[in-house]
Amino acid sequence: MWYHGHDVTALMKDATFADVVFLLHRGRMPVEAERRVIDAILIASADHGPGSPSAAAMRTVASGNRAAPEAAIAAGILAIGDAHGGAGLACLALITRGVDLVKQQGLSMDAAAQRIVKEETSAGSRLPGLGHRAHTTDPRTAVLFGMMADAKLAGAGVEFVRALEAVAARTIKPLPINVDGAIAAVLYDLGFPPAMGKLIFIIGRVSGLSAQLIEEYTRERPMRIKIPYVYDGPKPRT
Amino acid sequence: MWYHGHDVTALMKDATFADVVFLLHRGRMPVEAERRVIDAILIASADHGPGSPSAAAMRTVASGNRAAPEAAIAAGILAIGDAHGGAGLACLALITRGVDLVKQQGLSMDAAAQRIVKEETSAGSRLPGLGHRAHTTDPRTAVLFGMMADAKLAGAGVEFVRALEAVAARTIKPLPINVDGAIAAVLYDLGFPPAMGKLIFIIGRVSGLSAQLIEEYTRERPMRIKIPYVYDGPKPRT
Amino acid sequence: MWYHGHDVTALMKDATFADVVFLLHRGRMPVEAERRVIDAILIASADHGPGSPSAAAMRTVASGNRAAPEAAIAAGILAIGDAHGGAGLACLALITRGVDLVKQQGLSMDAAAQRIVKEETSAGSRLPGLGHRAHTTDPRTAVLFGMMADAKLAGAGVEFVRALEAVAARTIKPLPINVDGAIAAVLYDLGFPPAMGKLIFIIGRVSGLSAQLIEEYTRERPMRIKIPYVYDGPKPRT
Amino acid sequence: MWYHGHDVTALMKDATFADVVFLLHRGRMPVEAERRVIDAILIASADHGPGSPSAAAMRTVASGNRAAPEAAIAAGILAIGDAHGGAGLACLALITRGVDLVKQQGLSMDAAAQRIVKEETSAGSRLPGLGHRAHTTDPRTAVLFGMMADAKLAGAGVEFVRALEAVAARTIKPLPINVDGAIAAVLYDLGFPPAMGKLIFIIGRVSGLSAQLIEEYTRERPMRIKIPYVYDGPKPRT
Repeated sequence: MWYHGHDVTALMKDATFADVVFLLHRGRMPVEAERRVIDAILIASADHGPGSPSAAAMRTVASGNRAAPEAAIAAGILAIGDAHGGAGLACLALITRGVDLVKQQGLSMDAAAQRIVKEETSAGSRLPGLGHRAHTTDPRTAVLFGMMADAKLAGAGVEFVRALEAVAARTIKPLPINVDGAIAAVLYDLGFPPAMGKLIFIIGRVSGLSAQLIEEYTRERPMRIKIPYVYDGPKPRT
Repeated sequence: MWYHGHDVTALMKDATFADVVFLLHRGRMPVEAERRVIDAILIASADHGPGSPSAAAMRTVASGNRAAPEAAIAAGILAIGDAHGGAGLACLALITRGVDLVKQQGLSMDAAAQRIVKEETSAGSRLPGLGHRAHTTDPRTAVLFGMMADAKLAGAGVEFVRALEAVAARTIKPLPINVDGAIAAVLYDLGFPPAMGKLIFIIGRVSGLSAQLIEEYTRERPMRIKIPYVYDGPKPRT
Repeated sequence: MWYHGHDVTALMKDATFADVVFLLHRGRMPVEAERRVIDAILIASADHGPGSPSAAAMRTVASGNRAAPEAAIAAGILAIGDAHGGAGLACLALITRGVDLVKQQGLSMDAAAQRIVKEETSAGSRLPGLGHRAHTTDPRTAVLFGMMADAKLAGAGVEFVRALEAVAARTIKPLPINVDGAIAAVLYDLGFPPAMGKLIFIIGRVSGLSAQLIEEYTRERPMRIKIPYVYDGPKPRT
Repeated sequence: MWYHGHDVTALMKDATFADVVFLLHRGRMPVEAERRVIDAILIASADHGPGSPSAAAMRTVASGNRAAPEAAIAAGILAIGDAHGGAGLACLALITRGVDLVKQQGLSMDAAAQRIVKEETSAGSRLPGLGHRAHTTDPRTAVLFGMMADAKLAGAGVEFVRALEAVAARTIKPLPINVDGAIAAVLYDLGFPPAMGKLIFIIGRVSGLSAQLIEEYTRERPMRIKIPYVYDGPKPRT
């Protein structure tokens, strides 16, 4: 058995899972700094507690279906759509569009960012990857950008989201780069396509869903999860 | 286009969906009474409100993923496991085992029911298809058994669950046949295999999930559903 | 138990599943002609053979997972995306846009259809609901439109897709209304929102997936389905 | 943000993903040898090519649904049932039963293995974790057991599957421990419950599904996957 020409038993002995994630998607082994960034992204995505839609969907399915762990994990992944976990993909697509403006039309980073902000706001969209309810600046962004800078891996992706942040601060309001925006920038600079913005989040998140699923099976009763609601339809007919 | 030799446009003009459900699974068109029983089962299965695990899982996925209706419906179906919606399949398998004892070993219905009750209780299992939290007798059971009796369709399936109910009442406690048990008995007498006990529930339930999904998209905010929990793990390390 | 104020046991006795599909989505019982149209749509959607992506995905999951019918059905539904089964939703959204142009901007049906065709073709999109590989005219379209005309239920939806077909024939090439376009037009005139264009297809299709799943369990071996491929990556390293 | 009391930004800087998989499931950080075993299991599970049911199901869904990567990944996971990817869970449950016989009833490893082999064969079951089509001895088993021995982590789990292999060789035929059996033994000795036998396979496999999904989107046409079949039902009626 080989992964892109590398013997699997040799990889089992010498490599880490993050090496193999990189290898399977890019067709070559990562250098040490690339591998560490993949690890950091997977770790940041692994678990956001039982309150996130992916964990809630997984637990609700486990509550009715205690014999098929694959069904609960699949349901958790299905909650990773546009409103939850979709910002990475959307931001990576935005970066791709922005950097293409720089490369193909010769715009400066700042001019490209202005163009993208204008297009998004006039379409009524929020800028994916910028802003966060709780944090003013997201400490995970600093970790990822620090790693990229130290290893001299930061490129047009990181530069473009920083331009985006600066334009947004001038023309809308301070919207610091959140972890989704940081991950998207970093994935761009590592050479991944837009779909990877969601897929790497899924790869990481499955580990948190797995740990919570074992907890649900072990500590909770079947059928425990109810969605609260008030019925406001017609009364029974007589 | 044909379904088992029947032209689809002719079916569109003259048949009902319940006719086609029967046709696709049994390879022939139903008689009127068979078709009415299929309709009654699909109607009984269609919707049990937002509180059931299938609806809760569907709504939770829709809450994070508002662009893919297929993802929300699929998650709702995944909640139909053993603890929720699984009693029909389990009861139909039990009936198949019980009636085989009658046919192959010459036991009476009562003796076969005694044997099955003994095996299930000594394995620590509850009897699927018997008992219900809210109802003493389930009115839906009476409707289904009434239809079968009127059309002279009731056979060994209905007879066996009644024997099961009688044995349980004598040896455990009064456990009236619930709607899952009634559906299983009826499906047995209509010639369906055990898997149909769950599948017909899924076919019916998808309609209720669909109606609730449109309601969720139209009337509710994204990310609204949270599972309540109390964190009882280790404290942050310093 | 009630569905929108209707007692479920009364519905089991007197109604059909198509009545209840209508009731759950629209909050009232259908008239006879509306119910017949719902039946016709569900029947047309029920099964397109093992070659469709939904059936292929269902059978592939069943091939690896023979203990969880819900997993196989869910996978079949997940294949109902944009490329397969998505034309109904897309066409219903197009009709809604087109008829809004008529109602809100006072355009004629023909002018509204011209505007929509222009917008779609300049965006590089195909017109959903028009054209078909095999048929020149789809006989299912005639059945549905005939029912709507006979019952005087046809309205702006049917009128608009006909205008679309006429504009396409003048400006592109003959593209007859296919079954997806006919279903979308009919659903519009029955008062359903765009999501119903995909959801009613899913409700119908689950019955065909169920019948094929029982066939797969009964007649086929586990692990039988393989995707053919040619490996063209790097050679094993030495 | 913390995982079991560990600050997430600190983990992003210093830990690997395998560390966090261990931490989330066991509530403590692994020692180096434990982490390396988790990496080796994830790597061994990551990808078995497009021919496995999980990859085939994922690609089939992607073929009909090109807008929702989460739907394709979820379908791939749903194929991980009993016939594909289920041997790890089944073998881990078997080991748990076997070692309980040793601990609670004072049997020797060999006697416990004899009992389990007898029970499984008289129930008509194959022994999960033993035997393989292609390999006589699986090189991945040697890697995993070597790691466990070197780090002095091997315990009752490894000992029991070896006893199982010896009993099978004496009483049935040579059935070498395959990678599923080796993973199950190792997970037992690392303190994981039976469900982890399937869940760690899913965590690893999602990375291979992700890489193949990007390939499917990038290199293949929509609707390309067809299940071959021969229709043998009734002829069209006239």
